[in-house]
Amino acid sequence: MAMRTEAQPLIEALGFSPTPLEHGEHLPMQAYSLCRNGQSLFLITHGKDPFYGVDSVGTQPATIAALLAVQQFAPELIINGGTAGSFGSKGGKIGDVFLSSEKVVYHDRRIMLPGFFEYGIGNYPCVNAQRMAKDLGFKQGVISTGNSLDMVKKDLQFMLPNNTMCKEMEAAAVAYIAALFKIPFLAVKSITDLIDNDEDDEEEFVENLAMASRALCDAMLRILEYLKGKTIADLGE
Amino acid sequence: MAMRTEAQPLIEALGFSPTPLEHGEHLPMQAYSLCRNGQSLFLITHGKDPFYGVDSVGTQPATIAALLAVQQFAPELIINGGTAGSFGSKGGKIGDVFLSSEKVVYHDRRIMLPGFFEYGIGNYPCVNAQRMAKDLGFKQGVISTGNSLDMVKKDLQFMLPNNTMCKEMEAAAVAYIAALFKIPFLAVKSITDLIDNDEDDEEEFVENLAMASRALCDAMLRILEYLKGKTIADLGE
Repeated sequence: MAMRTEAQPLIEALGFSPTPLEHGEHLPMQAYSLCRNGQSLFLITHGKDPFYGVDSVGTQPATIAALLAVQQFAPELIINGGTAGSFGSKGGKIGDVFLSSEKVVYHDRRIMLPGFFEYGIGNYPCVNAQRMAKDLGFKQGVISTGNSLDMVKKDLQFMLPNNTMCKEMEAAAVAYIAALFKIPFLAVKSITDLIDNDEDDEEEFVENLAMASRALCDAMLRILEYLKGKTIADLGE
Repeated sequence: MAMRTEAQPLIEALGFSPTPLEHGEHLPMQAYSLCRNGQSLFLITHGKDPFYGVDSVGTQPATIAALLAVQQFAPELIINGGTAGSFGSKGGKIGDVFLSSEKVVYHDRRIMLPGFFEYGIGNYPCVNAQRMAKDLGFKQGVISTGNSLDMVKKDLQFMLPNNTMCKEMEAAAVAYIAALFKIPFLAVKSITDLIDNDEDDEEEFVENLAMASRALCDAMLRILEYLKGKTIADLGE
């Protein structure tokens, strides 16, 4: 999880304990661990950027955090939890929680060369979580990642053909590491703002971040409970 | 160095030998090493993307490669060598080699929230290489990184106030890791295309990649020779 605000409700609800990360003296990422009902859970937040003092959002810290998680905790499933923008015109609502469906894509890696175009989009796989989404009442959708909180026309031109439901800033980077290491990947995104309404996206994001983070926490708790005793195959249809 | 084509002339010229990378069975990155005149040199290329078979360009693989380099080789200096676009209107020419000056920035991380705006741009430090640039006859300029080969108007709006001379796809991600680990960083960029002329940037890039990679190799050889017996402080004025 990128931001402290996103992770804090879950850290408190489950009573996660800090655990040291390798290179912790150099890297801002913070790790937490917990053993619970036979589940070993590890949570990494991106931590505060040492140069600017804000949460280290975006795909470069997400790449580091995911690589550290794989190196140090050898997870059987990687969940990227966070907040996202959605499209009101497609039925997205503030406070909704979406599970990733099919694939995670990028919308800000435009490389118009043969082969590189598809590489830029990424299309990293997600676990089939259709059964879990139905059982728990979560929506599902394609998640698209870029390093900007706002959106330019070109971003949208990449998002629409990929049938994007959620726009955020980390999932594809985490999914890329998961795909390289062949670890099942799921994204869970709670909606802070609608990117196709007349409101200012940044204002909406700030206004709704705490509420969406609580919704994310509730969703994660229900998902972790649901996962107990199940295999990855049990999550799909 | 991101692309095989960029690195191949240098690998051949110096006779680099392959060296295993941790997680090499999962990651596309390729490492090479060499001991030469008392210098221990390590070179990492991003390797071919296992999903699309093209060179793993961009900031996410650059983050992985730089982190692996730091973890495994504990470098005293990190050089990100590669190709870039430049501005003809500012005096950039195809085949020019630029050394980084002052800072490396991002132009595709637009986060219009207090504190996050500056974080998005990055502004990671580079070694003062003014003396080396003068002694070896290299130009210097601000390097700006984004994950697209093309450019949208907003990218340019971010590049201009930062006085960008070179636009490329990796340097800021490598500089970020270098800054986190407090390792001196230098970028060396050879120009494949002019982003403010009427030519198609993608075509120009493909046409000039081999030539620019040879120019990059020549520059790297002269820089490595120059570095012999010098400290980082000797590179500046």
